[in-house]
Amino acid sequence: MDYAYQKIKNLDFDKVNEKIREALMDVGFGIITEIDVQKTFKEKLDIHYERFQILGACNPSLAHEALSIEKEIAIFMPCNVVFWENKDGSVTLSAVDAEKQLNFANNKQLSRLGKKVNNLLAQAIDSL
Amino acid sequence: MDYAYQKIKNLDFDKVNEKIREALMDVGFGIITEIDVQKTFKEKLDIHYERFQILGACNPSLAHEALSIEKEIAIFMPCNVVFWENKDGSVTLSAVDAEKQLNFANNKQLSRLGKKVNNLLAQAIDSL
Repeated sequence: MDYAYQKIKNLDFDKVNEKIREALMDVGFGIITEIDVQKTFKEKLDIHYERFQILGACNPSLAHEALSIEKEIAIFMPCNVVFWENKDGSVTLSAVDAEKQLNFANNKQLSRLGKKVNNLLAQAIDSL
Repeated sequence: MDYAYQKIKNLDFDKVNEKIREALMDVGFGIITEIDVQKTFKEKLDIHYERFQILGACNPSLAHEALSIEKEIAIFMPCNVVFWENKDGSVTLSAVDAEKQLNFANNKQLSRLGKKVNNLLAQAIDSL
C-alpha cells in the first residue's frame, strides 16, 4: 500500500479522534469536512460497520497557492486523514499521499507543495 | 490535464450548483461534503476569490464495496465534483478521475469500480 502514510496507534478511537484534530491544527490544517463512515453505512445501507472516520484537512494558504497554479487541483482537496478501529482496539490512521496525487498535474511547483503537505500530515500523525 | 473529466457549461453558477446536485442524485450519488471555496478564502485569508464549489459525492453501495476490498481507499472518498465561475460567466465543471486514483491500489476490482464511478460522474456532468 504505497499511496498513504499509515500508522497503527494503541490508543482508544475517541482519543485518536480528539488528538488528530489537535495535531493537524498544530501543523496548520483545519478540519473542513468529515464523514462518519459507520453512521453513513447504518443510515444508507442498514449495515453495521466498524468505527471509521474520514477527516478532510485543509491549510488555506497552501490550498490557495495550489489553486493559483491549477484550479482543477481542487479535485484533490481537502487532504484526507482517515482512521478506523481494529478488532484488537487499536486504531489505524492513514493520510493521503498528496505528492503522488499532485504529480498527476506534471507541475514541479505542485509536486513540491504536495511534498510539503505530506511532511506536515506525517508530523501530525507521528505526534500522537 | 488528464486527471479529471471536465466540461464548460454556458449556465449560471447558481443553476449549475442546483442542477449538478440533482444530476448526481439521479446516478446514485448523494452530496456528503461541500466546501464553498470563495467563502473559505474570505474567512481564512481575507482574499476575494471567484465563486468556486467543491462537492463530495458518494454512492454508499460502491463506497462499501471499495472499502471491503481495501480500507485505505477511504483516502480517496468522497469523489469530488468541483466547479468555478469563469470571467465570461460560464462555469467549468470537473470531476475526479476515480479510476486513476484507484489504480494506485493495483487491484483490478478497485480499478473496475473506479471506471464505473467515472462513467456515472461523466453521465451526471453531461446531463446538464
